[in-house]
Amino acid sequence: MEALLKTIEILGIFAFAITGIIEARRKQMDIIGTYSVAMVTAFGGGTLRDLLIAHYPLFWMQNYNYPIFILALSVFSIFILRKKESFSPSVVMLLGVLDALGLGLFSAVGTSYALSAGVYWFNAVLIGVITGVFGGVMRDVICNEVPVFFKQSQLYATCSFVGSLIFVILANYFPVESVFPLISCIAAAFILRIISIKYNIQLKF
Amino acid sequence: MEALLKTIEILGIFAFAITGIIEARRKQMDIIGTYSVAMVTAFGGGTLRDLLIAHYPLFWMQNYNYPIFILALSVFSIFILRKKESFSPSVVMLLGVLDALGLGLFSAVGTSYALSAGVYWFNAVLIGVITGVFGGVMRDVICNEVPVFFKQSQLYATCSFVGSLIFVILANYFPVESVFPLISCIAAAFILRIISIKYNIQLKF
Amino acid sequence: MEALLKTIEILGIFAFAITGIIEARRKQMDIIGTYSVAMVTAFGGGTLRDLLIAHYPLFWMQNYNYPIFILALSVFSIFILRKKESFSPSVVMLLGVLDALGLGLFSAVGTSYALSAGVYWFNAVLIGVITGVFGGVMRDVICNEVPVFFKQSQLYATCSFVGSLIFVILANYFPVESVFPLISCIAAAFILRIISIKYNIQLKF
Repeated sequence: MEALLKTIEILGIFAFAITGIIEARRKQMDIIGTYSVAMVTAFGGGTLRDLLIAHYPLFWMQNYNYPIFILALSVFSIFILRKKESFSPSVVMLLGVLDALGLGLFSAVGTSYALSAGVYWFNAVLIGVITGVFGGVMRDVICNEVPVFFKQSQLYATCSFVGSLIFVILANYFPVESVFPLISCIAAAFILRIISIKYNIQLKF
Repeated sequence: MEALLKTIEILGIFAFAITGIIEARRKQMDIIGTYSVAMVTAFGGGTLRDLLIAHYPLFWMQNYNYPIFILALSVFSIFILRKKESFSPSVVMLLGVLDALGLGLFSAVGTSYALSAGVYWFNAVLIGVITGVFGGVMRDVICNEVPVFFKQSQLYATCSFVGSLIFVILANYFPVESVFPLISCIAAAFILRIISIKYNIQLKF
Repeated sequence: MEALLKTIEILGIFAFAITGIIEARRKQMDIIGTYSVAMVTAFGGGTLRDLLIAHYPLFWMQNYNYPIFILALSVFSIFILRKKESFSPSVVMLLGVLDALGLGLFSAVGTSYALSAGVYWFNAVLIGVITGVFGGVMRDVICNEVPVFFKQSQLYATCSFVGSLIFVILANYFPVESVFPLISCIAAAFILRIISIKYNIQLKF
């Protein structure tokens, strides 16, 4: 179970970092810029969450390997992305799946931390959403774009919101050590996200 | 007295959130984007202040109702702003008045917190200004604009600065429980702001 | 020794603030905007570092004079920059030298604080880099530019990285009170930066 969650988390960080790297390459940044954007995308949401609820030390300070992992990824990707400017549909789909998994997991973890810190339930849901989406917002701000999910969201933040809400509700009925709320949150956010991509559902009004 | 301050605070949050909503609608954001920008505009300044002086828990985590209030406002405004793209002069004036009240109150509260935390007086004034104006700066950064008050300020930050300075000076002569410094700060920032709008005073040089 | 470091620090803050002022003037900001950008450029990196490792009170809250010093600089510079839109080569070179000194010192101080806070060595190096370069990133984000050093870096962040890495390595072999790691970090970042400007070395690939 633990190993599964760890795997999903790493895949989520991987997917988030990759979206940062792709955006940085589009903006013709060099390796340092690429690494910075990848770091911000992968860790921005969790860092803001930790600052908001005074959760020290920050999660990526403790996970020594993550920053080095993303450095390796940035260096590696630069050689890959030199040759291939666009991706095959299957790669795009794989990235979307990883990203959706990461979104669900980050939301669940964020909500969980906020509840532990005694935050009011609605605000805990918001912190779940912040954890899930803020990295992408920062990526777009640094790359000088209007945050993409603000414009054509395909329910991105909404998936995070629904997942976090489910987590908060279930957390009332299950003991703290149960992983059921966590799994439900990830599953809800993931499935909703995949459906909204497939059918291009948007909240545009 | 307490009730009056609470009312002004809610009106200030209301006005700040509205300016965020209007800007988000201009950028054709969806409901999630609109809500996000409204939250950032209303709570950005106070959040940065709390982070800078390690004032935990953050003020909006304790005031459970504010985030829900802004959610309602965002949903509601989207229907209003669909039909009316521009505002009548009286609505613009009302928003300006609320915004000026909020600016004064946020500045006073920010300076007050900073002094309580033992911050040096000049830095306490700066934190008052940060509390008053940072939400608007964040709004403009997220919406990919050069912060509007940096360009054509009509004394926006200056009003906050003068109010905060008056607060710091008066705080030396009145007991902690006195509301006189608070009221003076709000009044000074408010009046200066209204005058500068009316006569279009700018510090452009 | 202390006096020398203090002098370098002030020169570094001076140089960073100046780059912010120049950028703000280019964007035709008024005095408040100029002061804000100068403050963010000079203190942004150190502030983020302090938030990330929960190092309170923030460094510029304790150094009362710095914000007032930058205020004076902003007011003063506005009169200077009115007349001279461009700079003579010797002024540009002087600014570059000061900036490189500041970059080295900020990196060293940031890494040093991070190590003291028990941060893992690679993350301490990253915090050194954040301290050195984040002020400039914030300057560019506020001024609505893609951060300049992400695009044409001339090894800017790399100099900070190398300096911080040298600091971490030497900190293992010298007692805490030794200034040798600090001096080595500053020297390495400074020399590498000057060389990379002179020969226009870039990591563009």
